[in-house]
Amino acid sequence: MEAYLDNSATTKVSARVVEAVAAAMTDDYGNPSAMHNMGVRAENKVREARELLARLIKVEEKEIYFTSGGTESNNMALIGAAMANRRAGNRIITTQIEHPSVSNTMEYLKEQGFAITALPVDPYGQVQKEALREAMTEDTILVSVMYVNNEIGAVEPVEEISHIIRAVNPKVIFHVDGIQAFGKYKIYPKRLGIDLLSVSGHKLHAPKGVGFLYKHSQIKVKPIVFGGGQQDGLRAGTLNVPGIVGLAVAAGEAYTDFEKKQEKLYQLKALFVAGIQEIEGTKMNGYPGRESAPHIVSVSFDGVRSEVLLHALEERGIYASAGSACSSHKASISPTLKALGLDKHYLDSTLRFSFSIFTTEEEIDYALKALKEILPVLRKVTGR
Amino acid sequence: MEAYLDNSATTKVSARVVEAVAAAMTDDYGNPSAMHNMGVRAENKVREARELLARLIKVEEKEIYFTSGGTESNNMALIGAAMANRRAGNRIITTQIEHPSVSNTMEYLKEQGFAITALPVDPYGQVQKEALREAMTEDTILVSVMYVNNEIGAVEPVEEISHIIRAVNPKVIFHVDGIQAFGKYKIYPKRLGIDLLSVSGHKLHAPKGVGFLYKHSQIKVKPIVFGGGQQDGLRAGTLNVPGIVGLAVAAGEAYTDFEKKQEKLYQLKALFVAGIQEIEGTKMNGYPGRESAPHIVSVSFDGVRSEVLLHALEERGIYASAGSACSSHKASISPTLKALGLDKHYLDSTLRFSFSIFTTEEEIDYALKALKEILPVLRKVTGR
Repeated sequence: MEAYLDNSATTKVSARVVEAVAAAMTDDYGNPSAMHNMGVRAENKVREARELLARLIKVEEKEIYFTSGGTESNNMALIGAAMANRRAGNRIITTQIEHPSVSNTMEYLKEQGFAITALPVDPYGQVQKEALREAMTEDTILVSVMYVNNEIGAVEPVEEISHIIRAVNPKVIFHVDGIQAFGKYKIYPKRLGIDLLSVSGHKLHAPKGVGFLYKHSQIKVKPIVFGGGQQDGLRAGTLNVPGIVGLAVAAGEAYTDFEKKQEKLYQLKALFVAGIQEIEGTKMNGYPGRESAPHIVSVSFDGVRSEVLLHALEERGIYASAGSACSSHKASISPTLKALGLDKHYLDSTLRFSFSIFTTEEEIDYALKALKEILPVLRKVTGR
Repeated sequence: MEAYLDNSATTKVSARVVEAVAAAMTDDYGNPSAMHNMGVRAENKVREARELLARLIKVEEKEIYFTSGGTESNNMALIGAAMANRRAGNRIITTQIEHPSVSNTMEYLKEQGFAITALPVDPYGQVQKEALREAMTEDTILVSVMYVNNEIGAVEPVEEISHIIRAVNPKVIFHVDGIQAFGKYKIYPKRLGIDLLSVSGHKLHAPKGVGFLYKHSQIKVKPIVFGGGQQDGLRAGTLNVPGIVGLAVAAGEAYTDFEKKQEKLYQLKALFVAGIQEIEGTKMNGYPGRESAPHIVSVSFDGVRSEVLLHALEERGIYASAGSACSSHKASISPTLKALGLDKHYLDSTLRFSFSIFTTEEEIDYALKALKEILPVLRKVTGR
């Protein structure tokens, strides 16, 4: 048996998405920028995708920009907004638990002369609002906070954060990394006061290599890639029609019986969390229930190194993640776990288990059973 | 009947590529950065693709960086090399007939304080070497010349250009936009003295949304996108495994019976050119034979506006292009045609016809027959 519990790293592409992608590669393969019928057909596919996505998050179609994925969406949002609004100020606020595609982009912006404030979080990964209020200096132009943290599933109070920002300065741009949240939560940027929202396809059963950025029509963003003027000149390059079509189909599927799917994920999570709590020497990071994301559970294990446990699980066909997969093999200490104030001995003894709508109760049971068997053995070896 | 003669805009994805892409989406869907078996399987797919591509162009595997397509490859090469080598000098040399993903990136670099020299070309689109020699000032850090021009199929003397550059200053970085050339010509960067080579998948029967950049291991390039440290930190973001797998399969197909395929394209071109020459009031731009690319023919038509002709052809299921498709609907005057010194009345009376290995002689015949019928009618209407 196998249990794929690494859905926050990436997901299996759904059958209907694969079909749609294949059709876009063989039938509607025109260049959407071409002026003839083959181009128009491809362009229509892109337009339909844009329409659907805009409808799902209740924004205008022209506010959706397709990208090559979450990392590019975050880069385009942050670099683009910072560069376009430089005259308004120099300070950018973020948090200590952002994904590297935000935190490393902030490092780049720092090199470019911007001042970066990274807000602390509480032990549950919640951004400290008082710290935000204090950080909101007059020269602040941009705030970036993730919706769902990728390592522990913390859900940030995005709407409240938006209110705090607006109360100080309504002109400040608010970016939200929605990569782990889109499809798990119904996100309405206009209602929540979000100006820029990053989304990735492959976290949601769409193919890798595609994502989108929602940009409020009145927010100024400079392009980071230059070329043929596609997408209002903001994101040049031939549109990835198959990927875009796949992203739309996947989003459509996620929004079909949305609440039922969310409920299913919460039940899987509850099952898993209950099982973990039965195991001695474990500690859940973040809220265990409905206060945090339905698909991510972070667990620290006494006396077991995460890499060792990961491989022991892998031998039984159980796939999880140490920290997040996003740091490309580097098994370095997670800044997120550090920011939570996790005990030092837990920092490299923590695994992330993440579910999708394809995850079954059998997989959860299988993983729990394996953990119960493996942990005592591993602990015996390490003598703890 | 239909005739798809817009293969330089984009190509149909081949059946074997579609299969491989679908398998990568459903079977090997892991995140290549994940440390478990599902990740390793995906990573192996990427490695195999990288190995194949490196072998085909005779470079090292670590010199291949996957991107979201040709536009990103060009941006990464130019912005990345310019920013990383800024201390060595300020001047960048390019040509007047580059694709917008080069020329508009040059505009951006100009805004960043670089001095840009755009070399003139002769009436056949050949870069004027004397002009290059003169332009090679001491502060030159980067030269960018395309291998095959996307609008008229001119083939630039890349090796000679490399010699000219090196003779003046061996440290100057030489970038080649190989997007229209890869798969049509066997390009060996090391032999030709190319430091950076941009390639796109969808010009070659691979999916849209993927490409690669060859970067000589000793050339310094700064990243333009920041995140999880993938691909040696030069190009962050989860690798687009299905796209990368598709690109490799497509490249493998292109290199199978390479000469036979090239020969087939030249024969299609010869057939088309011969037919065009029979039509009164036409003018071929660029060399008609084997001195230029096998798959691109640019024709100017007396007394007919390109948009009108394009639509008349489209009504018969014949798909061509006015200028290139890359400028996203803008039917503006092509800088390339202008740089050739084309008579003014031809500037908006020019179409590009472009072939692929899937193009048939029947399609060519059908298009020629249609042109012979349509042109007199259109000319009657316009009174020319």
